[in-house]
Amino acid sequence: MIEISSRWCKGNVVASIFENLDIQTLPSRPTTASSTIFRIADLGCSAGPNTFIQVKNIIDAVSQKYHQSAVELPELQVYFSDLVSNDFNYLFATLPRDKQYFAAGVPGSFHGRLFPKASLNFVYSAYALHWLSKLPQVLSDANSPAFNKVGQAYSAQYAKDIECFFHARGQELAPGGLMVLLIPGRPHGTLPAQGSLAPFFAPLESTLADMVNDGLLSEDKFDSFNLPFYCPSVEELRTLIEENGCFDILKLEIEAAQTPAYPSVQQCRAGMEGILKKHFGDEIIELLFDRYLLKERNWSTI
Amino acid sequence: MIEISSRWCKGNVVASIFENLDIQTLPSRPTTASSTIFRIADLGCSAGPNTFIQVKNIIDAVSQKYHQSAVELPELQVYFSDLVSNDFNYLFATLPRDKQYFAAGVPGSFHGRLFPKASLNFVYSAYALHWLSKLPQVLSDANSPAFNKVGQAYSAQYAKDIECFFHARGQELAPGGLMVLLIPGRPHGTLPAQGSLAPFFAPLESTLADMVNDGLLSEDKFDSFNLPFYCPSVEELRTLIEENGCFDILKLEIEAAQTPAYPSVQQCRAGMEGILKKHFGDEIIELLFDRYLLKERNWSTI
Repeated sequence: MIEISSRWCKGNVVASIFENLDIQTLPSRPTTASSTIFRIADLGCSAGPNTFIQVKNIIDAVSQKYHQSAVELPELQVYFSDLVSNDFNYLFATLPRDKQYFAAGVPGSFHGRLFPKASLNFVYSAYALHWLSKLPQVLSDANSPAFNKVGQAYSAQYAKDIECFFHARGQELAPGGLMVLLIPGRPHGTLPAQGSLAPFFAPLESTLADMVNDGLLSEDKFDSFNLPFYCPSVEELRTLIEENGCFDILKLEIEAAQTPAYPSVQQCRAGMEGILKKHFGDEIIELLFDRYLLKERNWSTI
Repeated sequence: MIEISSRWCKGNVVASIFENLDIQTLPSRPTTASSTIFRIADLGCSAGPNTFIQVKNIIDAVSQKYHQSAVELPELQVYFSDLVSNDFNYLFATLPRDKQYFAAGVPGSFHGRLFPKASLNFVYSAYALHWLSKLPQVLSDANSPAFNKVGQAYSAQYAKDIECFFHARGQELAPGGLMVLLIPGRPHGTLPAQGSLAPFFAPLESTLADMVNDGLLSEDKFDSFNLPFYCPSVEELRTLIEENGCFDILKLEIEAAQTPAYPSVQQCRAGMEGILKKHFGDEIIELLFDRYLLKERNWSTI
């Protein structure tokens, strides 16, 4: 059971829980000494606070659903999951004081197993599934016949990664479990480079291009820099899910593309510093973000 | 069900699991679509690596026990728990690559609830339960009639804290669950100040005393500095557990006191910097640990 939407939206998540969560197949009033628990995972949660806001929305909807079904709400446990490199210390330090759940952090890649079998009741992931597990290998091999077929290589890597993601979640979701994914996509028939996230990275690309123009960065380094993410079309995603077979699609909604706000220097640094260092080396980082900050000040004052 | 030992010891933990874990009351071969899971928590795990070593010992013993009972080993999930201020980023980054379990970090105080009801099968805590939730209040009130009854105030605070600990764990342990606690204690009839951990803090105390002698720290500040920990006697602990009533004592072992190795400057700083800053202010910290390091070099060369 799966629901996919293209943008973060409280209304959609709440509606999906109301329509699709079947309380009868889920933990209900304890019948034995061992109690029942409703477990939620946010995959690719980042360091907050968006995850806290959305988890609260999810819990409100789940609670109402139980209330409506006249079944006592089980205790709730929420797993906040992201890569090992995520700042879990910050996440834990900023957990809401009035939270109505037991919190845990789970480090690791959602392209593999993260939880025991049939242990989750609700899986949520927002703006995370566009990240690939790695850059397609052909990109780094100039002799490869696929070297120019960049979009195709990304699409193939995405297909592999999403297969791993669904396979892992298929094992982790308990019977009656529900999954809601918010995935940045692109219109049918457009090129992969025209994904909805492209404008989001425009200031970074422009800063790097300026540094090439000013002789601070080699053109080769700039040209060979690729970000490991991919925005699928809805048709592509539907085919992948149907071929995968682990999940039924309950709803697959497209929301109109909106121009996203540019990321601030802090947001860009938090998400990108590791990738940038790996490709360009440590030494350009301070200069790069100093220049990014100047650009940010310019666009903020427009 | 509880087992208490006074020192970290692989042999004891393994023996305890062999003697006391009853596979028949625990998760066994799945009979329905939803699988069974064996969940372990290390409370007060710190940032590693001790917790990884001991978790491996625990898992080896649990696996052998299942094997012996000819029951298929369930999937394992390990919760590493410590205060929010613990370095979970470091813990996650150093998780063993060959681990045979799903790992999660759980931030929070073990003096309150950390996990859903009946969700744990094995609880372990080593050298953590001597930490109090706070300093006894009377200590800071020079007009209190109990101001001189320091040991009594600590003992009372310990009784309150351990009551909260057992009450929370009593709810969290599943039927058939087992708890092993390694608690630094002190011989019956000795004063609380004679707990087995006192020598461990001798170099820190001596460094602070030197700074008072050299006029770098006021005597008042030094005298009013108290650490929020307490080492109970076995008799005291037995009474507290029996009065609490949440657990049966399966075994309560005393191991001979050994002189602990002094903590290195890194260990001392990792565990104590926050507490020292709060009492003495930020400004003395660098000087204090510079002096501690000199002392460390002296005792290392003896």
